[in-house]
Amino acid sequence: MTQTTPVSSRNQRNVLVKAAADFVTKAMVDGSYRTFLPLRRIADDYPNAYFDRRGAQHKASVFCSNDYLGMSNHERVVAAARNVLDEQGLGSGGSRNISGTSHYHVELEAELAALHGKESALLFNSGYVANEETLGVIGKLMPEITVLSDSKNHRSLIEGIRKSGLKRVIFEHNSVSDLEAKLKALPADAPKLIVLESIYSMDGHFGLLEEVCRLKHRHNAMIFLDETHGVGVYGRTGAGVADSLGLAHEIDMFQGGFGKAHGATGGYVVGDRFVVDAVRLMAPGFIFTTSLPPLVLAAALASVRHLKQSNVERERLFANVSLLKDELRRHGLPVMDSPSHIVPVMIGDSFRCKSISDTLLREHGFYVQPINFPSVPRGQERLRVIVSSSHTEREIRAFVIALAHIIAATS
Amino acid sequence: MTQTTPVSSRNQRNVLVKAAADFVTKAMVDGSYRTFLPLRRIADDYPNAYFDRRGAQHKASVFCSNDYLGMSNHERVVAAARNVLDEQGLGSGGSRNISGTSHYHVELEAELAALHGKESALLFNSGYVANEETLGVIGKLMPEITVLSDSKNHRSLIEGIRKSGLKRVIFEHNSVSDLEAKLKALPADAPKLIVLESIYSMDGHFGLLEEVCRLKHRHNAMIFLDETHGVGVYGRTGAGVADSLGLAHEIDMFQGGFGKAHGATGGYVVGDRFVVDAVRLMAPGFIFTTSLPPLVLAAALASVRHLKQSNVERERLFANVSLLKDELRRHGLPVMDSPSHIVPVMIGDSFRCKSISDTLLREHGFYVQPINFPSVPRGQERLRVIVSSSHTEREIRAFVIALAHIIAATS
Repeated sequence: MTQTTPVSSRNQRNVLVKAAADFVTKAMVDGSYRTFLPLRRIADDYPNAYFDRRGAQHKASVFCSNDYLGMSNHERVVAAARNVLDEQGLGSGGSRNISGTSHYHVELEAELAALHGKESALLFNSGYVANEETLGVIGKLMPEITVLSDSKNHRSLIEGIRKSGLKRVIFEHNSVSDLEAKLKALPADAPKLIVLESIYSMDGHFGLLEEVCRLKHRHNAMIFLDETHGVGVYGRTGAGVADSLGLAHEIDMFQGGFGKAHGATGGYVVGDRFVVDAVRLMAPGFIFTTSLPPLVLAAALASVRHLKQSNVERERLFANVSLLKDELRRHGLPVMDSPSHIVPVMIGDSFRCKSISDTLLREHGFYVQPINFPSVPRGQERLRVIVSSSHTEREIRAFVIALAHIIAATS
Repeated sequence: MTQTTPVSSRNQRNVLVKAAADFVTKAMVDGSYRTFLPLRRIADDYPNAYFDRRGAQHKASVFCSNDYLGMSNHERVVAAARNVLDEQGLGSGGSRNISGTSHYHVELEAELAALHGKESALLFNSGYVANEETLGVIGKLMPEITVLSDSKNHRSLIEGIRKSGLKRVIFEHNSVSDLEAKLKALPADAPKLIVLESIYSMDGHFGLLEEVCRLKHRHNAMIFLDETHGVGVYGRTGAGVADSLGLAHEIDMFQGGFGKAHGATGGYVVGDRFVVDAVRLMAPGFIFTTSLPPLVLAAALASVRHLKQSNVERERLFANVSLLKDELRRHGLPVMDSPSHIVPVMIGDSFRCKSISDTLLREHGFYVQPINFPSVPRGQERLRVIVSSSHTEREIRAFVIALAHIIAATS
């Protein structure tokens, strides 16, 4: 009897390593390879941070952080985190169900429901997971829904729709006519869920909320709105873009996060009590994971509460955004037409985008990460410039002059 | 021309709410409904925590936390978190690629690769996401793989295998003969990936690592090992169960987390440099999400480093585990035969399980969460008792006496 010689498992591992190496090499060749810049943020000198270069520490002014309002180092936020760290320690020690619920989780969920004028809220470890898991459960609850999804929706929404197993129809980004045509093509009594974002963070566009809310009524649709980049920044209480337009009551379910304007981390959804409770009981990515540390929730709570009654940070941010846009236009730079606080400057080539970014950092001390594929389509590479409420007028002017200089020198 | 009356979207929302309410009601009826207990942990009196009852605060000794070694309140861990909070503020402000990489992310990744003897490591916001996203990418890199998955694998592994799109063969939990039969049924030269856990946290079983490593060679398979409940607790340096058996070099990819023994939050994978780099460049749940706050990584780093050189916490834990098991057996309680530090007591009915847990908490000040469906199959409801290194002998004896008393009274 003959036996086949066992093939070494090392060979299979080599095949996997080879496939990975091929992918990595391809990314290097096409310019989509990413190198992360390690930063040492300076809490009392935000938005400045140190970075290492040839063994020495250099300072950069960060022009690409989502910490729009500098809340990561706000005294109330830091004090809340510090107090809970001293009182309770760091990790929660369990999933929400198994010893991992702190009273801060509960308080924050109540605060968020009230902020958005909904019945209930549920926390997730990230905004990404909130989208993916909640949409997944909606599909299980009501499998007859057809989802109408904006073509530029965030990957977490796309993954959530995929996970839901629901029929999906993609409409052209921000095209009311295309959305309307696609709604009309569906039976009038078919349940429909329009999934969109209040701000598309790579372009700085607003979603067309007024129009979508009008169509919703005509076509028997529900709305799931991702407010990740809107909460904290828009609305008199920081409740987001829909609220600032007086449309919060038209939104069936909101998603938001603490990793941007709130200067913390984590995400959430708010909506009808039973729907949120079903997500709580069904979503595996909520159930089977360690909950966020109490100090993170206490900090997020402090941030949400502060931004509910303070407009100073928002006013400073929008003054800085205006100045930045004016200066970029005055210098004739290819600034994209963005109505929001996110200001992309179109470059259109991954290598040039990276090279401009490198020069800005090395020679001028300004950090703007190049945005390449897969965050934006190839050929639409850009510098997404973000000022915070903490930048000074002088820094903003100096930044634009440096950028204009580099772009002129490399055209 | 007649027009159809628009169906109100409110109706569709009612249908969704109704479906959710039905699910919630069903869970209440079958006993799988979950009520979270909000805790106020006491850092300097771990593992004790306060909980509210009728408006008053009561103290409980927590017997179900995954913070096995009390590292959430270890002075080094807390000091590291406090220093970075003061120095850098809270949130990272961005994804890893866009201003969200701190030097603590980089240092921790290097430390983890070294701990497991692999080339590279990659951090995720949770162990759940680490499993789901990494397996997802492996499927894209090498779609010809067949996954052999233990029937009791964690939901995050199941979701990852689903996301990978790979062909999946499930083998009977910890059955070497079934795994071998299923390996034999596949072509000898077909690439295979065995996915398993080093500790099955609901039963306290170890995965059969020696046997699986033997089969791996005979059948040309790779191994992906989830060490979430093993790291920190097993091995002379806290590198986990495989390392404690001298088998770390046989594992092709490890997954681990900081939310259990390390007292923090977050997860990671370690493996071959190119594979990890491909995951970094491809996994949407890694790319498109805000990175963990620097203070969390600094704390995790302090914890990993401390447990690399200190055995005191592990020794105390295992002394407590022995005492707990001995006491449970001595009182004739239905303790499951668990070789690890996780000690389930089988109850087998969700209402009884919850009722015993309620009485333990209310009348005796011991908190053990009932483990019901979907965490375990229906009919296998249990109290999963976990001591920490910080419990006293007296607390453990008192706990077992209380449990024996309640079980006797309700049988």
